Amino acid sequence: MAMSDLRKGPFHLTNTLTRRKEEFIPLRPPHVGLYVCGPTVYSDVHLGNVRSFLTFDVLYRWLTHLGYKVRYVRNITDVGHLVDDIDEGEDKIAKRARLERLEPMEIVQKYTNGFHDVMRLFNILPPSIEPTATGHLIEQIEMVKRIIDSGFGYEANGSVYFDVPRFSEHHAYGELSGRRIDELLANTRDTEGMAEKRSPLDFAIWKKADPIHLMKWPSPWGEGFPGWHLECSAMSTKYLGRTFDIHGGGMDLKFPHHECEIAQSVAADGIAPVRYWMHGNMLTVNGRKMAKSEGNGFTPEELLTGNHKLLEKGYGAMTVRFFMLQCHYASTLDFSNAAMQAAEKGLERMMAALSTLDKLRATGSDDAGVAALEQRCYDAMNDDLNTPVMIAELFEGVRLVNSIHDGKIAIDPNGLDRLRTLFRTLTNDVLGLRQEQRPDTDDRTLDAMVQEFIRMRAEAKARKDFATSDRLRDQLASWGIILKDTKEGTSWERA
Amino acid sequence: MAMSDLRKGPFHLTNTLTRRKEEFIPLRPPHVGLYVCGPTVYSDVHLGNVRSFLTFDVLYRWLTHLGYKVRYVRNITDVGHLVDDIDEGEDKIAKRARLERLEPMEIVQKYTNGFHDVMRLFNILPPSIEPTATGHLIEQIEMVKRIIDSGFGYEANGSVYFDVPRFSEHHAYGELSGRRIDELLANTRDTEGMAEKRSPLDFAIWKKADPIHLMKWPSPWGEGFPGWHLECSAMSTKYLGRTFDIHGGGMDLKFPHHECEIAQSVAADGIAPVRYWMHGNMLTVNGRKMAKSEGNGFTPEELLTGNHKLLEKGYGAMTVRFFMLQCHYASTLDFSNAAMQAAEKGLERMMAALSTLDKLRATGSDDAGVAALEQRCYDAMNDDLNTPVMIAELFEGVRLVNSIHDGKIAIDPNGLDRLRTLFRTLTNDVLGLRQEQRPDTDDRTLDAMVQEFIRMRAEAKARKDFATSDRLRDQLASWGIILKDTKEGTSWERA
Repeated sequence: MAMSDLRKGPFHLTNTLTRRKEEFIPLRPPHVGLYVCGPTVYSDVHLGNVRSFLTFDVLYRWLTHLGYKVRYVRNITDVGHLVDDIDEGEDKIAKRARLERLEPMEIVQKYTNGFHDVMRLFNILPPSIEPTATGHLIEQIEMVKRIIDSGFGYEANGSVYFDVPRFSEHHAYGELSGRRIDELLANTRDTEGMAEKRSPLDFAIWKKADPIHLMKWPSPWGEGFPGWHLECSAMSTKYLGRTFDIHGGGMDLKFPHHECEIAQSVAADGIAPVRYWMHGNMLTVNGRKMAKSEGNGFTPEELLTGNHKLLEKGYGAMTVRFFMLQCHYASTLDFSNAAMQAAEKGLERMMAALSTLDKLRATGSDDAGVAALEQRCYDAMNDDLNTPVMIAELFEGVRLVNSIHDGKIAIDPNGLDRLRTLFRTLTNDVLGLRQEQRPDTDDRTLDAMVQEFIRMRAEAKARKDFATSDRLRDQLASWGIILKDTKEGTSWERA
Repeated sequence: MAMSDLRKGPFHLTNTLTRRKEEFIPLRPPHVGLYVCGPTVYSDVHLGNVRSFLTFDVLYRWLTHLGYKVRYVRNITDVGHLVDDIDEGEDKIAKRARLERLEPMEIVQKYTNGFHDVMRLFNILPPSIEPTATGHLIEQIEMVKRIIDSGFGYEANGSVYFDVPRFSEHHAYGELSGRRIDELLANTRDTEGMAEKRSPLDFAIWKKADPIHLMKWPSPWGEGFPGWHLECSAMSTKYLGRTFDIHGGGMDLKFPHHECEIAQSVAADGIAPVRYWMHGNMLTVNGRKMAKSEGNGFTPEELLTGNHKLLEKGYGAMTVRFFMLQCHYASTLDFSNAAMQAAEKGLERMMAALSTLDKLRATGSDDAGVAALEQRCYDAMNDDLNTPVMIAELFEGVRLVNSIHDGKIAIDPNGLDRLRTLFRTLTNDVLGLRQEQRPDTDDRTLDAMVQEFIRMRAEAKARKDFATSDRLRDQLASWGIILKDTKEGTSWERA
């Protein structure tokens, strides 16, 4: 165990490569290398994407909290991701550029900005490095060369393919996703690019570009662009080394994307790239998978405004965050209005307890069970990031806070300090929760209250009670509200 | 003139290449290509940088407002910018990485995030494309090849230099910055790299990397990295074409950076890259240049909090924006507390007029001079982005708004509509101004007012006036404020 605070216990996580919960032992403590597959920036992020990034945000926050120095790399896919997710069809970004009549890099910028806005909204921390596929073409070309040199890649008509059958003769292709070469072969259909490939299982690591293609670069095999799987291998190797600690992504990326990443690294550098693979599960809506084609993949903006047929009302970003954290990352999570409204109330109770904590006074002679509560919270998080159990423990804490506030339970000063630290650390730093921002609502409330004071002042004036009317004006001024009397009535502004 | 609305008149800007105010005629209307030198992301942005980016933000907003479709490219320099701004010394980012014990790309990410936060704070719009130097190595290597092929570049010991004397025999080197080759030669000092250079005026377009160097890539000349000036030439060519409309940057970039950009493009592609060069002037503090070494280069955060010895108090981001726009971009601007406090009042008057506009009613029979006011505002902006004159005209508008409000002037419905559109468009869209955000202050004000209602309710209860105490509770509830009575008193929370 790397950390000094042994009470916190070792951290375990489910390694989807071994399908077992394992103790996490980093290669070079206190450093941890973490790579997470980021978005392909060709469309707006939907809520299912948010869940995946949130999972790894909590992992990053928890490892950091435990004292690890995490180098967290999350990429931006800005080239090479084809429409059908395999080797045929148009590049997703090039297609969108054609539809929006923009240069592909304008599409990349627009949706990268949008992605960052959504991450900020949900308080998902930025990674240490956010590399782009187009920013690492030389590294990708060098990796293709190494794969060809190792005998597991071949050129055909200006493209370069990864030779899956030959690779699987020497290495375990399919280990991560539990697929077998013979089954995969039985299930493949013929595709356009087949003529060039020796086997339908082979995948492109470099694709020849059509003359009209906008996103292309010179290479030893002519003008082209990298295959989708290659970027993650090249960038994780560059920033985290040939083998690193944790690789994360959504479950849908296990095959072919992550399987191909492993094959590429083993072929190029002779070593398995990742020690712990971690996959987040899906978000469903009323029991059905969230997807644009289903019409249920609502955007964060629709969620906040409630402007979608499946939404009874709008929900705040922190409510959504809290809702998602009440489910374990490896389980599917179903989005429903009832669950969201329950989460809204739960978050409010937790935030109210945080305020109440400030007002408590220590009058007792023991810690009222805080040390044991703390241990249970740490045990939950160290058990494969079990946020729902940890949140349930925090609600025990909420009850304790309220009982102390009501004078039913007494706590000593050390216990109270520890309770405050525990609550703030776990809710704000680890779960990344904060008070919901509602500036518009507050603006309306503020105005309504000022209008009421203006009305009371007018009443006082009408009955010639100038002492009261002046007092009200001065009181408002002391709060930074300046009244202006005109012949059309009284208005106000901030001082 | 490209636009349909002739009333708005042609746009003129000062071309720093010709040193004349010229009518702006884009190459391919309605499209405009705009390139602006972005930050080198190795330290926090200071207020002088903000001024420069604000200048081009207003240019971008104005061109967009005039109806042009602007492709605005602003780069991120993440490699190649050496400490002494010429060809010697350490890479600025590599040096900071060494000091902060981080990987260079972690430094890049950290300060890119910080830069984006500052841009958002000052409401400076993101560009259409924000390319990075490391993201365009292949394009830069290709450009070095073209420069060598044209005879204006030569390799020496793994580096490639631009041959300034040979270039100046055929082309006008120094035209932009008004420098002459003989004067430059007389003023150069010997430097470390001299042994490799044929002339001290030559500059690196590709630098050989030391073995310990972290930021390096393979090239036809061995492992190395691009020269600082090269990235802007390569990226502007890629995204805007070999010749494009406007290139902007701070005055300090005129020489050598922009001069070298021109030379590189002419050498590589045989054509001058830019039709209109535009340079913003400096920000000074109490008459002295803003610089970190002077101790007066305060960060945006210091400015907002007032936590700096030169600041009497904190100023809001919109106040700073307004302050800067009250000066023409080509003039030096001096930062002082007195000027900031005047700007604060001015911005408040303008924002108050925007609210007042909503309440006005049209009762007159003419437009009260709005058409003429509008024309004067457009004339000012079309005259080389003369924001101070335009703001002075808007203050004429503020007086008009207040006179209409006070019943001293009448306006007809069309005039009032036009006045509203003019104000909103120019203040919000073109100048990018909005109400200063003060959530903390509002929170305190809100709480103070709720406490006053709680006090009034307690008084009513004490005198057994339960009708009043219930009415007050219900009134607060209708505003979204829920009271909770406990034995320790009454607290409140949002509904």
